Amino acid sequence: MDAGRLSLNQITVNSLSLEQAVDACGRHGIGGIALWRDKIAAAGLERSVRLVRDAGLRVTSVCRGGMFTDPAATPAQVLADNRRAVEEAAALGADVLVLVCGPLTDTDLPGARRRVRDGIEALLPHAAAAGVRLGIEPLHPMMISVRSVVVSLRQALDLVEEFDDEHLGVVVDAYHVWWDPDLAAQLVRARGRVLGYHVSDWKPATTDLLLDRVVMGDGLIDLPWLSARVAETGFTGGVEVEVLSSALWREDPDELLVRVRRGFADAV
Amino acid sequence: MDAGRLSLNQITVNSLSLEQAVDACGRHGIGGIALWRDKIAAAGLERSVRLVRDAGLRVTSVCRGGMFTDPAATPAQVLADNRRAVEEAAALGADVLVLVCGPLTDTDLPGARRRVRDGIEALLPHAAAAGVRLGIEPLHPMMISVRSVVVSLRQALDLVEEFDDEHLGVVVDAYHVWWDPDLAAQLVRARGRVLGYHVSDWKPATTDLLLDRVVMGDGLIDLPWLSARVAETGFTGGVEVEVLSSALWREDPDELLVRVRRGFADAV
Repeated sequence: MDAGRLSLNQITVNSLSLEQAVDACGRHGIGGIALWRDKIAAAGLERSVRLVRDAGLRVTSVCRGGMFTDPAATPAQVLADNRRAVEEAAALGADVLVLVCGPLTDTDLPGARRRVRDGIEALLPHAAAAGVRLGIEPLHPMMISVRSVVVSLRQALDLVEEFDDEHLGVVVDAYHVWWDPDLAAQLVRARGRVLGYHVSDWKPATTDLLLDRVVMGDGLIDLPWLSARVAETGFTGGVEVEVLSSALWREDPDELLVRVRRGFADAV
Repeated sequence: MDAGRLSLNQITVNSLSLEQAVDACGRHGIGGIALWRDKIAAAGLERSVRLVRDAGLRVTSVCRGGMFTDPAATPAQVLADNRRAVEEAAALGADVLVLVCGPLTDTDLPGARRRVRDGIEALLPHAAAAGVRLGIEPLHPMMISVRSVVVSLRQALDLVEEFDDEHLGVVVDAYHVWWDPDLAAQLVRARGRVLGYHVSDWKPATTDLLLDRVVMGDGLIDLPWLSARVAETGFTGGVEVEVLSSALWREDPDELLVRVRRGFADAV
């Protein structure tokens, strides 16, 4: 993949502050960044806006809104927090606000999925008013009870088509969807609906359900194939490298980013 | 679920030999058992047959055939081993030989899926000749690189319908398929094709990709709903309790089986 499309999802270098991550993008010639809300909060929103603007960085996404089934929050509280996420994404000029749609906390999976649907319905007018696009990111089914009850691209597109609103689309993360025999067909269906594309790789003998990803090219995902299918949907935005890995987080971020750039060029 | 349908998948009490597992079934009033090939080999096939016959146990399955993409074996070696598995299932009068269809060992996922298809095609005449039914068991997508490239009931049924042979069907394991938004629709499609039904439960904060299942009722799966849908397919066979758990393997098997019986009665 052309290096000009690389965007650094901040969680790849989770030990760095927002300011440090911005600086790292400058050192490594990376033109885009995806910001996490905890890091935005730590830096302050206004300062975050100034930092990315001064560095000339494109903000490909804010991670994340959603969590519509949070058992510790009422629907009104969830909506209020998601509205703040929309405001942050608007202030940062982000291409998309990523929605993580879950988790499941009891045995009522259809009920949780209805709450996700209703939560999106409630949030969408606010996103539209702020000019922010919402991207439903289906997560790997193994994360259903900790993150998301939306577990396949088909399911995400069902939601997107139900609302049929230009401010709602999908985010395709290779790690979350690569296993799906239905993926090629759903990517045909996703034409014009893809608002984000994330890459990392699946470690052959993975041992952790959350933090065991590897750099592109070090795993089993046929990323060039997937990149071609995503391109066919018409998506031309920044491609986020999002490698959640407790092992890589312990490495030197600059050395990791050299590998990230190489993996992006050679294996995406 | 009626206790009369309970079958003990031997791996639930993995520390026990085949003979000990058979005895445990007698002590706990369990009428069916599913046998693993390593345990059959340890006991010897003839002795295994005699043990289950003398105990009056129904053998609901032999686990497992498949592994069509084993990188350490040629297709001929894979077929030879699967033919032995068919012979064991025939000798034991098992209801079904479970097929675990993978794993993925490189980035060619479509290629691995073709090899699975071809492996089934090669094995099916031998199964039919022996009067043994083969059950494709879709496994959870998180196990794609260690076990199975067949990851959804839809995909398994696509294979079954392609061959449309009474000796080929599917095995529905709650743990592997419960997350799937497409599950209800696929179970309608599965009418007459279900050769086995396995139950366990998904621990809310699961930490292991293989060995962290819990007893039915202790997790997030709506098993009564699933049991009703499986019944509607026409399946009336034994229902296997298959709890792979390194934690439970350390418990006293008799105490575990008391909980298994209770969970089966109350939560399946």
